[in-house]
Amino acid sequence: WVGEFFPGISKIKYEGPSSKNPLSFKWYNAEEEILGKKMKDWFRFSVAFWHTFRGTGGDPFGAPTKHWPWEDGTNSLSMAKRRMRANFEFIHKLGVDFWCFHDRDIAPDAPTLEETNANLDEVVALAQELQTKGKKSVLWGTAQLFMHPRYMHGAATSSELGVYAYAAAQVKKAMEVTHYLGGENYVFWGGREGYQSLLNTDMERELDHLARFLEAAVAHKEKIGFNGTLLIEPKPQEPTKHQYDWDVATTANFLRKYGLIGEFKINVECNHATLSGHSCHHELETARINRLLGNIDANTGDPQVGWDTDQFLVDIQEATMIMISVIRNDGIAPGGFNFDAKLRRESTDVEDLFIAHIVGMDTMARGLRNAAKLVQDGSLAELVRKRYQSFDTEIGSQIEAGKADFDFLEKKIKEWGEPKVASAKQELAEMIFQSAM
Amino acid sequence: WVGEFFPGISKIKYEGPSSKNPLSFKWYNAEEEILGKKMKDWFRFSVAFWHTFRGTGGDPFGAPTKHWPWEDGTNSLSMAKRRMRANFEFIHKLGVDFWCFHDRDIAPDAPTLEETNANLDEVVALAQELQTKGKKSVLWGTAQLFMHPRYMHGAATSSELGVYAYAAAQVKKAMEVTHYLGGENYVFWGGREGYQSLLNTDMERELDHLARFLEAAVAHKEKIGFNGTLLIEPKPQEPTKHQYDWDVATTANFLRKYGLIGEFKINVECNHATLSGHSCHHELETARINRLLGNIDANTGDPQVGWDTDQFLVDIQEATMIMISVIRNDGIAPGGFNFDAKLRRESTDVEDLFIAHIVGMDTMARGLRNAAKLVQDGSLAELVRKRYQSFDTEIGSQIEAGKADFDFLEKKIKEWGEPKVASAKQELAEMIFQSAM
Amino acid sequence: WVGEFFPGISKIKYEGPSSKNPLSFKWYNAEEEILGKKMKDWFRFSVAFWHTFRGTGGDPFGAPTKHWPWEDGTNSLSMAKRRMRANFEFIHKLGVDFWCFHDRDIAPDAPTLEETNANLDEVVALAQELQTKGKKSVLWGTAQLFMHPRYMHGAATSSELGVYAYAAAQVKKAMEVTHYLGGENYVFWGGREGYQSLLNTDMERELDHLARFLEAAVAHKEKIGFNGTLLIEPKPQEPTKHQYDWDVATTANFLRKYGLIGEFKINVECNHATLSGHSCHHELETARINRLLGNIDANTGDPQVGWDTDQFLVDIQEATMIMISVIRNDGIAPGGFNFDAKLRRESTDVEDLFIAHIVGMDTMARGLRNAAKLVQDGSLAELVRKRYQSFDTEIGSQIEAGKADFDFLEKKIKEWGEPKVASAKQELAEMIFQSAM
Amino acid sequence: WVGEFFPGISKIKYEGPSSKNPLSFKWYNAEEEILGKKMKDWFRFSVAFWHTFRGTGGDPFGAPTKHWPWEDGTNSLSMAKRRMRANFEFIHKLGVDFWCFHDRDIAPDAPTLEETNANLDEVVALAQELQTKGKKSVLWGTAQLFMHPRYMHGAATSSELGVYAYAAAQVKKAMEVTHYLGGENYVFWGGREGYQSLLNTDMERELDHLARFLEAAVAHKEKIGFNGTLLIEPKPQEPTKHQYDWDVATTANFLRKYGLIGEFKINVECNHATLSGHSCHHELETARINRLLGNIDANTGDPQVGWDTDQFLVDIQEATMIMISVIRNDGIAPGGFNFDAKLRRESTDVEDLFIAHIVGMDTMARGLRNAAKLVQDGSLAELVRKRYQSFDTEIGSQIEAGKADFDFLEKKIKEWGEPKVASAKQELAEMIFQSAM
Repeated sequence: WVGEFFPGISKIKYEGPSSKNPLSFKWYNAEEEILGKKMKDWFRFSVAFWHTFRGTGGDPFGAPTKHWPWEDGTNSLSMAKRRMRANFEFIHKLGVDFWCFHDRDIAPDAPTLEETNANLDEVVALAQELQTKGKKSVLWGTAQLFMHPRYMHGAATSSELGVYAYAAAQVKKAMEVTHYLGGENYVFWGGREGYQSLLNTDMERELDHLARFLEAAVAHKEKIGFNGTLLIEPKPQEPTKHQYDWDVATTANFLRKYGLIGEFKINVECNHATLSGHSCHHELETARINRLLGNIDANTGDPQVGWDTDQFLVDIQEATMIMISVIRNDGIAPGGFNFDAKLRRESTDVEDLFIAHIVGMDTMARGLRNAAKLVQDGSLAELVRKRYQSFDTEIGSQIEAGKADFDFLEKKIKEWGEPKVASAKQELAEMIFQSAM
Repeated sequence: WVGEFFPGISKIKYEGPSSKNPLSFKWYNAEEEILGKKMKDWFRFSVAFWHTFRGTGGDPFGAPTKHWPWEDGTNSLSMAKRRMRANFEFIHKLGVDFWCFHDRDIAPDAPTLEETNANLDEVVALAQELQTKGKKSVLWGTAQLFMHPRYMHGAATSSELGVYAYAAAQVKKAMEVTHYLGGENYVFWGGREGYQSLLNTDMERELDHLARFLEAAVAHKEKIGFNGTLLIEPKPQEPTKHQYDWDVATTANFLRKYGLIGEFKINVECNHATLSGHSCHHELETARINRLLGNIDANTGDPQVGWDTDQFLVDIQEATMIMISVIRNDGIAPGGFNFDAKLRRESTDVEDLFIAHIVGMDTMARGLRNAAKLVQDGSLAELVRKRYQSFDTEIGSQIEAGKADFDFLEKKIKEWGEPKVASAKQELAEMIFQSAM
Repeated sequence: WVGEFFPGISKIKYEGPSSKNPLSFKWYNAEEEILGKKMKDWFRFSVAFWHTFRGTGGDPFGAPTKHWPWEDGTNSLSMAKRRMRANFEFIHKLGVDFWCFHDRDIAPDAPTLEETNANLDEVVALAQELQTKGKKSVLWGTAQLFMHPRYMHGAATSSELGVYAYAAAQVKKAMEVTHYLGGENYVFWGGREGYQSLLNTDMERELDHLARFLEAAVAHKEKIGFNGTLLIEPKPQEPTKHQYDWDVATTANFLRKYGLIGEFKINVECNHATLSGHSCHHELETARINRLLGNIDANTGDPQVGWDTDQFLVDIQEATMIMISVIRNDGIAPGGFNFDAKLRRESTDVEDLFIAHIVGMDTMARGLRNAAKLVQDGSLAELVRKRYQSFDTEIGSQIEAGKADFDFLEKKIKEWGEPKVASAKQELAEMIFQSAM
Repeated sequence: WVGEFFPGISKIKYEGPSSKNPLSFKWYNAEEEILGKKMKDWFRFSVAFWHTFRGTGGDPFGAPTKHWPWEDGTNSLSMAKRRMRANFEFIHKLGVDFWCFHDRDIAPDAPTLEETNANLDEVVALAQELQTKGKKSVLWGTAQLFMHPRYMHGAATSSELGVYAYAAAQVKKAMEVTHYLGGENYVFWGGREGYQSLLNTDMERELDHLARFLEAAVAHKEKIGFNGTLLIEPKPQEPTKHQYDWDVATTANFLRKYGLIGEFKINVECNHATLSGHSCHHELETARINRLLGNIDANTGDPQVGWDTDQFLVDIQEATMIMISVIRNDGIAPGGFNFDAKLRRESTDVEDLFIAHIVGMDTMARGLRNAAKLVQDGSLAELVRKRYQSFDTEIGSQIEAGKADFDFLEKKIKEWGEPKVASAKQELAEMIFQSAM
């Protein structure tokens, strides 16, 4: 393979909302400042190597549909290196600063761990070189602990000790290469850490194993001097019937139970949020108020389907709610926004890769602009402040300080009589919210 | 009202599986021992005053349909007392030892808290007398903090301080009357502790208030010398869009975050479990392994509907899974099984009240008998034990003791090579499970 | 009650997108022409008497919360008339031309049908007078066949013959008063035409009864000279476990099976659409291509909850998709847009009634403006046209005319070899769609 | 490959409920008569070639896990023939009379249609020989119109004419080989006949194409003298966002609209039923009363997951409800019960293939035995009969004959007054139902 991977496509530019050019940004303007921060710094967008370069279009009922010109149909080491070059051309042309990966996306598996690690090292060396040249960086790395059949019962929660050990060795290496590449975070997605049936599962023992595994990961992080954030990405189910990192609250309970709460943050994925019965905004807020918001997988599902569609998010109102949480959190660095989103199976043109990322980035940018308008306008925040103002009083302070016991409060009620309750003004809040769109 | 409330119905007897009499037990035999405990002691069945005596058959699209002969159409104090007599005749004839209640089910609300409390005291005095006479007992009491419009924004999480205070006063009294009646548990169900929209809600502040409230409840419990268990009953949503006690794990996270983990147990409701996306068995097991399993609301939902139907559970296989968890927990006393289940709106005969409870109790009894068979047979437990036997080794012990770091495990994998992974035998597990039905 | 019902509120005016006044339209400008039709004629907005004037804020777990100043707490005839005056002041101030109602919303039920009908006649006479004065009109009328306990097993599908007959008498009268008031449509919503359990239901017999009932309604329509459209409003479930008019396709199958397909159109409700597992756009398109699109209940549900929340729709992208269907259908007159939407239970200020309708109308207006932009731009339609252009050929015509048999097509494939398949360009379509927002 | 494929396993025998042997039937006794028909004739069980012999254990997040000893890792013609021999040994040892297949399961795809057809012919010739020898038969055949990338936009509803033609050629051949093998039915499952997004789809044109395609299939059936039943198998979604054969009612509407209602029956799959929001029993009853019940895909989903899990059904109560419908339909021949069910990904022992089918067949057998008990007992049917007895009267007959107009019924209601409405006795119905378990 010689020359460009995306020959007809030049660097994507910001052309503003009136542009009709599909290969331009209409809303995302990397260097523009919003609320005191450049757009690129709010987002720290990252391309997901797996979907963008390893997505085949296969689904449970269908064979691969993508035939990218640079692919030779093999899973060879040289193909892996060529693909890595394509990745860097892609993120360069897209104007994104970060990428992220699973170990097995970027380099082929081999019969032994030693050979597999050698493959990985070779590709990683190239990536390092291309990173330096292109001034790009790794948002996060992770280990793929779900694709290989050895992980069919889980990795850290497998019923087989050998698999637990294998997963440990694999995570060790994945942490090391992430560190080597200057990655700012390391992610755990426990795709098969869960069960298919409770009838044949010892859930307590499996959860204990998972805790031991994560403790060992923390220890290894320190040992190698990796200062990045460790992230857990919740998902309720699929591929398993039930995954242990069901949602943010479940994950937080696990971390607290095993004394790991200070060591991990959470990577919230919007599609996983809705599969667990929550809005994405809910999961972000839950992570935020538990001081756990670390990164965002910026995708969406279909509101009527029950599996993970990993679509590019194109809903401006949802993007606005996401950005409200991010602004409240004063950004999510060293985390960022990772496009854990894939082209639809039926989108088979090379340009579709760009179009999809552009509309995804523009949607987020519109969300940021809208959220900033709401912050600057202030009337939504004021509506909320007013709702709770009865607590901004002396007795309110006593209650909030834990100094108002039931006897005291009963006495007060006897004095005051029936409390007055104001309208929640939800429709007004929705009107204000919508006015920023 | 003079004489019997259920004149045609005598005490329900155990007649065995071949009986065709709808007003008899076919499987529940209170005094029969199963795995060393009487059936009645495994279950500690309790009738829910609200559904059984205050259920009107109203729904969001329909007016009440029940016209019990003892009801005079009023919410008077004398009606409340008559109804309490009906309750005791009912539980006597059904052969159940416990009942449970919300404060406002059993006594009418009045314009002031003082008057309302006086109403409650009068009915509670009667209940106490009837309890003593009938050798019955309260499984748990609770405060109804969702029906009155004052609670429209929540109780402990209301945006209005006065409502927080009112709720405190109400819970204080409800705890006191539960204690007076010898109740063995006190339940918190946060029906409106949640939000309808995040746009107008300060979730973090609301959760802080909830923690303060529960801390005050713990303090009050100690103050009055109540030794019962405090229980929280998770429910994901309905009436609100999102309730803070979403499921067992969410509730556990909350309790841990605020240092309340040792003070509360959980009352798992099967219908709430499925509304939160989990099987009932999952929620019970999650509670059990978090050492939080305190009580069971024995009902079920409809697998195809998205709201709380509170039906009597008639699925024998589900009942068996429930009882597997209960047996593993060695029972749930001082908690029990509360029928938080209501007659269908269209079931309007007085005898339907009995039929529904009988089939619910028989289903649970079949579940217990089947679960005991599985325990005695042992092959399901053996299948599970074998799955994890690779951890019953020296290296397994090291891992489980937190003494196997990533370097060590990587070295082992280099020694061992690719691990062998056995079949999970799920279909065999299902076959063994089913063979006990 | 003297004077105005909404004293502080004057006629709502269009003030344009930059207005911050909650009591103004920012996007809905009744007289403005869009694609050759005035906005008011595209929408034919109608206020739903039940939600707006009879909504109490009660829910399955809570008592009423609304205390409108004009309500005296009774269900008297004089209260009914006062409320009707409030309705006309409301629709006048809101600038809407239509209202719609159930018979029992507007006039109180009485012990006998004769008395009930007399009540209805009295209120209808007043409504007629107010209509004339205010130049307002009825979009549709309907009979409330679900609230009264007699309908607990259904109306036309009740297991009791007397209930079937009662429903017939009630629909007869409701059709007559709708006709008298100049209503342009008459709606059937089969709230309890369905089942709670198949175990006690003869579904086939019930569906036969429903067909007989609708045939009789058609006959009665002709008898009284009513020329309006008969509409069926599908809903999948709630209050029953399964309703016979599950969705558009189910309803169409029923109409076709019983030879009623030409006599009815469909009233699509967005919230019911999503409860049946479809997007609102899907249901509208299904109705449209079956030539059945008659009216729209313009509300929405919550994507994460499983019951009918009947919220005002505030999602601009959803509104745009709705309006794409309406434009393709060249409007839906004599049907219109009915706000089958209710204030949240916690919204208790009188002005909330206005705010909610305004944001709902503005959202629809934004949808219309966006959809018109897409039509005028043409690139989305062009993308679709191109996808199917292989059928705009001679062989395509043969296939579409039913003249291409399997032998012929097999021969062609042997000639042609493997077909080429183009990208579906979904992300591009989404980008174009979003650019109109 | 020489000798047996399942060397350790002999013919599965009926050993009765007390047997602990996993490789025996406890409830299915092929020759035993139930309600006048042999068990094998009620069920006409069929093994699904695809799941049982082509199921790899791959899922969207994981590689294949099954390594059957007879597989050589290729998709060669000789492998196809060896696999076919395994199939016949399997169904012989399982004691099942039927199998069913997609064209591409049993013979490899080749670069041209001609070569692919030649492959198919060669395998089919072998199958024919093995059928004759083993006295086995094809329950149904079908064409796989979803796996190959050419079908990514659908087959009959593809936007590309060439794909429509290819699908026609493929179905032609598949019908011909089904006919050749003596198949009694031919199935259409429109896996990709649907859409991923309405934005880029012309739904009306696609549905017209589908109708033309099915008309051509009917014509071809007649041309080749195939007398089997044509079946459509509804599924709501997955792999697409929306499939045109959503559920039974949607399919029936389509068939009626295009005048195809007499030409097709429906193959109901239980897992597809629940994915469309219905119980399996509901879909079977809907098919039955539309005179469309043709075949059953006997599997189940997981009540908490939103995708097609195709599990073996092990729920006895659900199996009983299925068999109630089958008995009411007096069997479903020439259709049967096809195990469209797959081993869990983690079940990797050869014996698991047998265990899964055995527990699936035993569950159905228990369902039949229980349903027969209910029929013989008669009390459930009697409860239903009584519910509707008010229609078994003169006026009931008039209504059912369409001779009772609204005027007549109104007059009656004025005579009769308020109708009496009896209890629906749902809990009693559930008690009777459960008593047969």
